[in-house]
Amino acid sequence: MSHDRDEPQAPGHLLDEPHHDGSPVHLDEEWPALGGTVRVRCRTAASDPVDGVWIRTTYDAEPVFHVCAPRHAPDGSTWWEGDLPVHSPVTHYRFLLATPDGRQRWLTGAGVVEHDVPDASDFRVTTHQPAPDWGRDAVVYQVFPDRFARSAAADEREVPAWAVPAAWDDDVVFEPHDHRTPLQLFGGDLDGVTEHLDHVEAVGATVLYTTPVFPGESNHRYNASTFTGVDPLLGGDAAYTRLSGAVHERGMRILGDLTTNHTGDTHEWFQRALRDPDSEERGYYTFNADGSYECWMGHGTLPKVDHTHPGLRAAFVEGDDSIVARWLRPPFDVDGWRIDVANMTGRLGAVDVNHEVARAVRATAAAVRPDPLVIGEHNHDASGDVDGDGWHGTMNYSGFSWPVWSWLRDPDSPARSFGRPLPAPVRPGPAVLRGLREWQGRLGWRATEASWNILGSHDSARIRTLVRDPAVHRVAAGLQFTLPGVPMVFAGDEIGLEGVTGEDARRPMPWHRRESWDEATLATYAALARLRADLPALRRGGLRWAHASDDALAWLREHPDGSVLVLARRAAGAPVRLPASALGLADGGTAPLLLATEDSGRDLAVAGGHLALPGDGPAFTVWELPAVHPPL
Amino acid sequence: MSHDRDEPQAPGHLLDEPHHDGSPVHLDEEWPALGGTVRVRCRTAASDPVDGVWIRTTYDAEPVFHVCAPRHAPDGSTWWEGDLPVHSPVTHYRFLLATPDGRQRWLTGAGVVEHDVPDASDFRVTTHQPAPDWGRDAVVYQVFPDRFARSAAADEREVPAWAVPAAWDDDVVFEPHDHRTPLQLFGGDLDGVTEHLDHVEAVGATVLYTTPVFPGESNHRYNASTFTGVDPLLGGDAAYTRLSGAVHERGMRILGDLTTNHTGDTHEWFQRALRDPDSEERGYYTFNADGSYECWMGHGTLPKVDHTHPGLRAAFVEGDDSIVARWLRPPFDVDGWRIDVANMTGRLGAVDVNHEVARAVRATAAAVRPDPLVIGEHNHDASGDVDGDGWHGTMNYSGFSWPVWSWLRDPDSPARSFGRPLPAPVRPGPAVLRGLREWQGRLGWRATEASWNILGSHDSARIRTLVRDPAVHRVAAGLQFTLPGVPMVFAGDEIGLEGVTGEDARRPMPWHRRESWDEATLATYAALARLRADLPALRRGGLRWAHASDDALAWLREHPDGSVLVLARRAAGAPVRLPASALGLADGGTAPLLLATEDSGRDLAVAGGHLALPGDGPAFTVWELPAVHPPL
Repeated sequence: MSHDRDEPQAPGHLLDEPHHDGSPVHLDEEWPALGGTVRVRCRTAASDPVDGVWIRTTYDAEPVFHVCAPRHAPDGSTWWEGDLPVHSPVTHYRFLLATPDGRQRWLTGAGVVEHDVPDASDFRVTTHQPAPDWGRDAVVYQVFPDRFARSAAADEREVPAWAVPAAWDDDVVFEPHDHRTPLQLFGGDLDGVTEHLDHVEAVGATVLYTTPVFPGESNHRYNASTFTGVDPLLGGDAAYTRLSGAVHERGMRILGDLTTNHTGDTHEWFQRALRDPDSEERGYYTFNADGSYECWMGHGTLPKVDHTHPGLRAAFVEGDDSIVARWLRPPFDVDGWRIDVANMTGRLGAVDVNHEVARAVRATAAAVRPDPLVIGEHNHDASGDVDGDGWHGTMNYSGFSWPVWSWLRDPDSPARSFGRPLPAPVRPGPAVLRGLREWQGRLGWRATEASWNILGSHDSARIRTLVRDPAVHRVAAGLQFTLPGVPMVFAGDEIGLEGVTGEDARRPMPWHRRESWDEATLATYAALARLRADLPALRRGGLRWAHASDDALAWLREHPDGSVLVLARRAAGAPVRLPASALGLADGGTAPLLLATEDSGRDLAVAGGHLALPGDGPAFTVWELPAVHPPL
Repeated sequence: MSHDRDEPQAPGHLLDEPHHDGSPVHLDEEWPALGGTVRVRCRTAASDPVDGVWIRTTYDAEPVFHVCAPRHAPDGSTWWEGDLPVHSPVTHYRFLLATPDGRQRWLTGAGVVEHDVPDASDFRVTTHQPAPDWGRDAVVYQVFPDRFARSAAADEREVPAWAVPAAWDDDVVFEPHDHRTPLQLFGGDLDGVTEHLDHVEAVGATVLYTTPVFPGESNHRYNASTFTGVDPLLGGDAAYTRLSGAVHERGMRILGDLTTNHTGDTHEWFQRALRDPDSEERGYYTFNADGSYECWMGHGTLPKVDHTHPGLRAAFVEGDDSIVARWLRPPFDVDGWRIDVANMTGRLGAVDVNHEVARAVRATAAAVRPDPLVIGEHNHDASGDVDGDGWHGTMNYSGFSWPVWSWLRDPDSPARSFGRPLPAPVRPGPAVLRGLREWQGRLGWRATEASWNILGSHDSARIRTLVRDPAVHRVAAGLQFTLPGVPMVFAGDEIGLEGVTGEDARRPMPWHRRESWDEATLATYAALARLRADLPALRRGGLRWAHASDDALAWLREHPDGSVLVLARRAAGAPVRLPASALGLADGGTAPLLLATEDSGRDLAVAGGHLALPGDGPAFTVWELPAVHPPL
């Protein structure tokens, strides 16, 4: 009763599929100039009878074709190369593959199809500047300040009237109907974060991202009462300055978190708007005739700002005096922003100025710092909002988390869903591959590579609670660090913290109970981060799928400087046999082990023309492969 | 070696798939108000274990879920109904289907999938006014004026200096390198069209669409030298007025053809721009520093206009004095426009004001006439340009012609390709179904229903040349008249005219050689048009697929006023057995024959719980079915 809308799986091997992606193996320029040309190529297998390939692009929305020339590689594969004119800021393309028997296939960003398909999954090159290198090479570590660490100064602070004070080891109150959920204050502060940067660095993180630090009458601080300063409960501006300085001293970066969609109802702008209907600030919000106002998802504490108002735009996101700009300068000196509710920002029914806001945030940031990063939160389909001149990428729930959750979830997990009425389903490997392919095709290579691979966040259940088995947790981490995209680790995931919802996931870090930490998993995170830092293939390599069965997925990350083979198994099963020639290995060749989460990892040797990947599981393993692509 | 990116075909019957589309069986309001609510529902089969259904829509790009309530129908199917808030001018939705074993499927506009997919194929409702009823109910007849018919007056006209005169029975010169191709003038004129309106009406057409009638130094007149009058070679303004009047007298409509993308290089605007660099008109075009200018696909005779210029916008498309407006008033009195090269209009590299132009054309037309129709030519992916407030629909090459061509093409056909480097491939029925589904999902129901189903045009090879076998030609016509969309018949298709390219397809109508007409095919066109006029199901019904095999496709068009079952066979084969209950037929029930292109058509009776559809082929057959849907 599951029905398809595409070709049935054919007997051919995944590694024999025609392939192209946006990585350096396949195109010679990732940031071309308008009016320039990019040399692009796709690979076809020796067994593929293809005898003609064309690039199909669009010229002001008119399809045009450019013929490709074949180059035969020593391993028998053929590389079809052609020139793609960069006619538009975002230039679409795909490949048309012809065979002598008259068959015609399309190679798109979502794979190969043998029927005509719309452009939604075309490959793209773009003339807009890509995300900065540091942003794409990053391992991001997310800190929820109230729950990460308390400095000694925290003990001296008075608990505000709105708060429900909690001791560090108290249970987190997280039921949505419980009024204490947003008010329970554990008292973590910014000096606490500064004091634990050794840990952040030990995990392998290069970017510290904190959820909001503005004052706000809640533990999450997404309801800011001002954007101009740091909550005194966190240590105020001085503590933030210390944290930012310490982060930068270590060669790391720091990101802020800004709610461009709304403010708190205690915000100075909103208070003025309430007090004085004639004020400038009244126009920053959308008041209805009855005195009610538009707010985030019906929450009156989060009034929505109106980005069609030039004054709000200037005060908030546009120009040198805006909130966006001032934090990018000393003393705060943030390197960029994670934009909260980026999807809803500037959108309200018939009004949609979302792209204008995204462009403004990015342009404002770029005017203040040479290489800022702007990541937009979108728990859904961000494809229309990225790969232009706005958000560099998104928190990739749709294109990463959901497919991974649906492969690794324990059916009996108590983890609750995030943004859906049902828990994540449990699906077999091929469904996960299909999901990843469609999302990567739709988001495009560049936006996928700059987006954050998240196993969870302060808004979702913890990955450990979702998968339960620590070994499966390490497989999840492996996916996070080795699929295209930037791993973002929610603080505590690396030691196996749990949580059935996003609110429950905000459990304080048990610094004083080290014995409760999952050290094996922590070591895996650190090893994965080191491997990612060491290998260009894991940061900039292409993605070629090698195997998909119910319990195993295998893929290559290919790069001119060397490639890797990755195997993820959610359970034990038969060894996966891969044809060695398709991996660039000759008879007698070996694939040295680079990383294994379990003891079963070992170097592999070609035997009988194949590489047999171990069937042990759950396990995650990475091997080194030679770079065998002819130069482009 | 054909690889999928989706679920493999499951054993379940197509008729058992969960189903929804944009037709009245499935939603209670096709043109909702912003802020209103639409009642929507999907159907699941008795054999489907689904036990929970949600509508997933987006609220300012945030996914939200609305639960559906089940209603059990007498035939065992379940209708899941819910309320969809119309929050945005174009509101997306899809269905989430849960089963007791934890499986979750999405029902989207492109079918059912069991992995998470982007929004590109979501269902949509829109608050913008739909295409006028007459436009959606139409059968459009396309006339290329130089080749349709000569009135007596044509003999009196002097052949202009640029033209290569031809006698009516001369061979058409069509090779692209031959300078005579655009210059060969056969001398058809508008009074010739008027004189043959009986034929147009006999074919069943309700809308006459002529390619351009402006003067231009070519036989196709897409290179207009003015937009303010009719070519004297066609009889001038008076002849157009006579034609328009005669068309309207018959209760029919007439559409013009406007090149909003470019003018001819002999156009009065362009001539002034060339003569006087300081003229207003200079700004209507894009001149480069070296004196060259932007033009259509490198053709210097077709300079591209610049829609960012307010003067050009006003002169051409915007407001009461524009070209768009003046033709919609008497004496020309056209009922709307087919917009040539609509895809490229307003687009040039980094500039893209296409949507603004589309909106302007539509708004201008709507200000002049109560119910104008605006169809944009797009030989490619128009999905971004429709279902808003611009073009009502497109010439649906991508979503109709290519899939149909790829099913019905004779492998030995000499027909050349249109816009592609290769002839149409030959594909089996399931691939055609997949293509149709993906395009319909991407374009959306409303735009698909308003778009033109074309088997060919003056820009492509003739369908008869492509399929060769007259019986297969009639199957093609059947698809054109019974799949969602508006049939557009290029004059001559109905009598079996041939042509290996678009230029060759412009062969003169052989009025004086009636014996050369394919009378059986002409009768089929007329019968299909009558059936379409008679049956709301064929004009407004939903589309539910019943069968797809290599040589046979079957589907239902379902409507509250009665449904039909359609079988298209490109070749003979085994009879197709359909479960009667899924068609709303009880044991002993019958499906009366409504139309058959071949002798094999007959009433069908349920036997053993099934309906056996005849295996004869090539053949196209339509049967009547009861409307069995519970009221919405």
